[in-house]
Amino acid sequence: MINIGIVGGTGYTGVELLRLLANHPDVQPTVITSRANAGTTVSDMFPNLRGKIDLQFTAPAVDSYKACDLVFFATPNAVAMHQVETLLDAGVRVIDLAADFRLKDIAVWQHWYGDTHACPNVVEQAVYGLPEMNRDSIRGAQLVANPGCYVTAVTLGLLPLLANKMINPTSIIADGKSGISGAGRGANVPMLFSEAAESVKAYASAGHRHYPEIRQNLRQSEPTADLVFVPHLMPMIRGIHATLYAELVGDATSLQTQFEEYYRDEPFVDVMPPGSHPETRSVKGANDCRIAVQPLPDAGRVVVMSVIDNLVKGAAGQAIQNMNLMLGLQETRGLEALGLMP
Amino acid sequence: MINIGIVGGTGYTGVELLRLLANHPDVQPTVITSRANAGTTVSDMFPNLRGKIDLQFTAPAVDSYKACDLVFFATPNAVAMHQVETLLDAGVRVIDLAADFRLKDIAVWQHWYGDTHACPNVVEQAVYGLPEMNRDSIRGAQLVANPGCYVTAVTLGLLPLLANKMINPTSIIADGKSGISGAGRGANVPMLFSEAAESVKAYASAGHRHYPEIRQNLRQSEPTADLVFVPHLMPMIRGIHATLYAELVGDATSLQTQFEEYYRDEPFVDVMPPGSHPETRSVKGANDCRIAVQPLPDAGRVVVMSVIDNLVKGAAGQAIQNMNLMLGLQETRGLEALGLMP
Amino acid sequence: MINIGIVGGTGYTGVELLRLLANHPDVQPTVITSRANAGTTVSDMFPNLRGKIDLQFTAPAVDSYKACDLVFFATPNAVAMHQVETLLDAGVRVIDLAADFRLKDIAVWQHWYGDTHACPNVVEQAVYGLPEMNRDSIRGAQLVANPGCYVTAVTLGLLPLLANKMINPTSIIADGKSGISGAGRGANVPMLFSEAAESVKAYASAGHRHYPEIRQNLRQSEPTADLVFVPHLMPMIRGIHATLYAELVGDATSLQTQFEEYYRDEPFVDVMPPGSHPETRSVKGANDCRIAVQPLPDAGRVVVMSVIDNLVKGAAGQAIQNMNLMLGLQETRGLEALGLMP
Amino acid sequence: MINIGIVGGTGYTGVELLRLLANHPDVQPTVITSRANAGTTVSDMFPNLRGKIDLQFTAPAVDSYKACDLVFFATPNAVAMHQVETLLDAGVRVIDLAADFRLKDIAVWQHWYGDTHACPNVVEQAVYGLPEMNRDSIRGAQLVANPGCYVTAVTLGLLPLLANKMINPTSIIADGKSGISGAGRGANVPMLFSEAAESVKAYASAGHRHYPEIRQNLRQSEPTADLVFVPHLMPMIRGIHATLYAELVGDATSLQTQFEEYYRDEPFVDVMPPGSHPETRSVKGANDCRIAVQPLPDAGRVVVMSVIDNLVKGAAGQAIQNMNLMLGLQETRGLEALGLMP
Repeated sequence: MINIGIVGGTGYTGVELLRLLANHPDVQPTVITSRANAGTTVSDMFPNLRGKIDLQFTAPAVDSYKACDLVFFATPNAVAMHQVETLLDAGVRVIDLAADFRLKDIAVWQHWYGDTHACPNVVEQAVYGLPEMNRDSIRGAQLVANPGCYVTAVTLGLLPLLANKMINPTSIIADGKSGISGAGRGANVPMLFSEAAESVKAYASAGHRHYPEIRQNLRQSEPTADLVFVPHLMPMIRGIHATLYAELVGDATSLQTQFEEYYRDEPFVDVMPPGSHPETRSVKGANDCRIAVQPLPDAGRVVVMSVIDNLVKGAAGQAIQNMNLMLGLQETRGLEALGLMP
Repeated sequence: MINIGIVGGTGYTGVELLRLLANHPDVQPTVITSRANAGTTVSDMFPNLRGKIDLQFTAPAVDSYKACDLVFFATPNAVAMHQVETLLDAGVRVIDLAADFRLKDIAVWQHWYGDTHACPNVVEQAVYGLPEMNRDSIRGAQLVANPGCYVTAVTLGLLPLLANKMINPTSIIADGKSGISGAGRGANVPMLFSEAAESVKAYASAGHRHYPEIRQNLRQSEPTADLVFVPHLMPMIRGIHATLYAELVGDATSLQTQFEEYYRDEPFVDVMPPGSHPETRSVKGANDCRIAVQPLPDAGRVVVMSVIDNLVKGAAGQAIQNMNLMLGLQETRGLEALGLMP
Repeated sequence: MINIGIVGGTGYTGVELLRLLANHPDVQPTVITSRANAGTTVSDMFPNLRGKIDLQFTAPAVDSYKACDLVFFATPNAVAMHQVETLLDAGVRVIDLAADFRLKDIAVWQHWYGDTHACPNVVEQAVYGLPEMNRDSIRGAQLVANPGCYVTAVTLGLLPLLANKMINPTSIIADGKSGISGAGRGANVPMLFSEAAESVKAYASAGHRHYPEIRQNLRQSEPTADLVFVPHLMPMIRGIHATLYAELVGDATSLQTQFEEYYRDEPFVDVMPPGSHPETRSVKGANDCRIAVQPLPDAGRVVVMSVIDNLVKGAAGQAIQNMNLMLGLQETRGLEALGLMP
Repeated sequence: MINIGIVGGTGYTGVELLRLLANHPDVQPTVITSRANAGTTVSDMFPNLRGKIDLQFTAPAVDSYKACDLVFFATPNAVAMHQVETLLDAGVRVIDLAADFRLKDIAVWQHWYGDTHACPNVVEQAVYGLPEMNRDSIRGAQLVANPGCYVTAVTLGLLPLLANKMINPTSIIADGKSGISGAGRGANVPMLFSEAAESVKAYASAGHRHYPEIRQNLRQSEPTADLVFVPHLMPMIRGIHATLYAELVGDATSLQTQFEEYYRDEPFVDVMPPGSHPETRSVKGANDCRIAVQPLPDAGRVVVMSVIDNLVKGAAGQAIQNMNLMLGLQETRGLEALGLMP
């Protein structure tokens, strides 16, 4: 058995990692930390884990998870960057589910995260953990930066268009729609049921932290790419729906085939038939990304719809996919569950 | 008291008309029809009306509502067009909440609604019932075509931009997000709670009937205007959120003032302060449209967010606003209720 | 115009008072306080009030609301008891929406609220504000204790049974089901959307504060009455559904008539026809209580179902009903709105 | 591989069987029927199955599933009874998820289901498929009647009380609360999102079909047992919460231990610690039943709270648990998934 540590286990990505790892046949979580809840039995906080996960939260102490083979950081932004070097030096593999190692340009990171980066040199060696872009590098990686949730849905929806040079790369509009769990498990008024239910709103329309991360991804494929990204809150727990608009420059009739070709061998990306509209519920609890492409030749536009579960392919599931790759396990291991529908 | 008839009263716009009319001091509903439910007491079907509305559904028969001063058609599309002429000839004022009289170009109507129009000549005299565009014509109108729900939210969000020539009129993207009640009260599987809850999806991405109606509105202001419109279903009962994107051609700094000026005297349009994000719940049950404008000068774009309650400002409330204008009553009469929040 | 003050206006009962008072023709809110948000414009926090309520929160200071004719305390429990005497001495009428003056037995209050009561003598003169029990006393009252939400639904469902001696008074089971807004607007994890949506749970099954209050009400009618009360959280914003079970001792055939007789003249209690099942949505936003009674003669039991909107008839609406009575206004004034359905 | 057939696969229990079977290592679904949708690819209707289930619906024809080792009937009530004999004669094992074989007393079945039973003699040999009651008989069974959803939650909550003679067996009140998926996938107005969301109501308070089934279970343990059962609809997709009330006749202090003892070896029943309140979401998508017991010695009562996912332990999951037992497979096979939380 391979030993796994989770730093910061009381948030939604933490419990989701545990839910998925509980049935993973090759690894076992052995340490899970929480500053505020040290001593609490994990399943007292998350009763879905009762009888399946027999762990207590411990105070975070780097030494305690040095014995792990791999450590997930499910902490807020700007935590992992203070601890990762010690772990890497000790030969521990690390996956950070927060944003500390996602942006290669330190100045950009510092601008959007309002902090001084603690280990810029480590950023360089981090591999960006979107397997559909970087599978081979992830296999050899010691440190993986797990992508943002919106970023995953948007990037996967746009990659085939950019690779095939089918769109004006500066014309992209990404309208993001997310379930409330994306805001985390912190107690704050706007995320109360009575505030968020039966309502929809945009937020961060002037600029959201996932914007530079999406742009960085797109520019790997097309250096001039840029976009407008506006995220919205939907009254549901899980799910992201990215609606992507761009000016079409190529022949619309080949779009469907291009998408199917691009993702032919991907275990977790499903290109739906022409005319489809993916529903977020079709991936609820699953590590899948479901995509449909709708050419609008009269308008000279293309619309792509891309859905994921923000806590699975958008966070914990993708982290386990990365873990499987890093550890030489089968990529889909522990991630076989289908979407919960209805 | 002014006598009001409602044709087709068993859908959501029908019951919403009754909810609002029940407390209107100047008018009273006297006839409400339903082919399938004739004989049923209205409040047996809609218990919120118990003790407030004492009516039975009657079989639809033009003669029965000829005695009304004004008749609302809350029927499916392509019903009103077969009956309106008789009523107009009898001197009855008519407001059609369906689409029969919204599009001036009969060929366009026939293309999108898949039917032959029964009275093209009447279309000509119909006034499009968006008071913020056509208040004076509505005052004198005998027949008003009540706008579509998405159309109301999108049009109100774009009018100031077009009037002030602030955007490239062919660059508009309208991402529409609607609550489920917009799909009506018909029994169909995709609108079941267990299908529509906890999920988001786009629909009609290849073309939705509200597209030509929005375009017609925009072209009143700017003849070259065009847009891409993709509607989405949100897991909530009421509410529309339109997110509008366009290329900015003017000076971003004047946008806020332009919106405030444009709607300064409108009783039901609220331009929010800079940096705001309107929530659909803030207009739940109310006839308000709340709008925020977000310039993105670096991207050369502007984003407008516009919210309404699809059953009120998007249907029954706007119909009563039109009724008030047609009957010479105070425009806000019966529409004073505030959004239900939380 | 009659001047109204609201102490503690940032919670759900505060904003609901404002929503209802905004259209009340005889009174106007002139002072609203908040310790934490003094200086904030009320409608910045609650955008549904924009353009309708033009007030700022002020720091709570008894002097500032001494000039009001009537003051609502929408504060947490154990706040009003420290300020009420000063106001009563100044001739100001007071309605406390919290629990400070609901229980006549001070020892019972102190047991359930875990505090020493600050003004036991004032409790004596307080009138319990359930108009269906105490209408005449409320008319002359200077201080009214507004009932708890569950208490209102349960008491109204049981009063006719006790008055007609139709049940074994110690056999009562009250299964309470409440929307999440009943938990208030405080930021706490269990009330987050992602925690409370798509789930149901009981709470306080060992004993809830509304139990002694219900018992006190029942014992006014039948001194031996007692009950088991278990509240549950439902994934919806507003609404209480009380399901009441008791052993039938009288003739089941007269139950329906007894309920209808008992509430014949009540403007806000609606006894539904035999075989009905009231839905909470039928009273959403309205001050109504809707009740159905189902005899189960074979089982020797009766089931009563009673629904209210916890924020209206269960809090702010009932408070305004009490205010109307205290001020000699028409009892239904400002409370005419119908349930929002759908 | 063991071949599995599903008759009537377009409802929620059908798709849930497929979701769970897709990852079951020992069996494979080979036939799935639908009268209305023959020819349709299953995953076109249920996109969560895309890439995992490669089947088309076929017209129901007994011959087509005679070749299966085991057949699930996920049909409406009164369908299986017309086909089961032929299958049993052909040596095929059968699990009926509907009610045809649940009630041993044919007259009672005919009263509650309003039909003449087609094969009363087969009812005799059917085993009632609640493993916690009948595990050994299920192991040898050729025909299993899968229990009702409410019945499962209520029975599991009461068995320890009856076995230990802790309650007055005629004093039981069962207040049932179910998510909307319990009503099935049929298109009907009351189950539309806009009707069922943001509301709670009781239904069938005069008598529900699950009442005689619960009573039959209880009477296996205590022949005089009887109960009042009132079901309620909750605005959520999945989950049942049964709140059970009874008069306590024994010593309250031993209750917790009795429950723990009773279910010590059960893989899918989790007795929570004293003071707990089980949440339905803790079993969402999982085959678990979570139970808490709350003695109320002062009131002479006991309250039990029991939660399941109505589609899993209340239907498809329990059916697979029964299948595993019938086929000699490990009982928990294919049912390892944890509750999806949040």
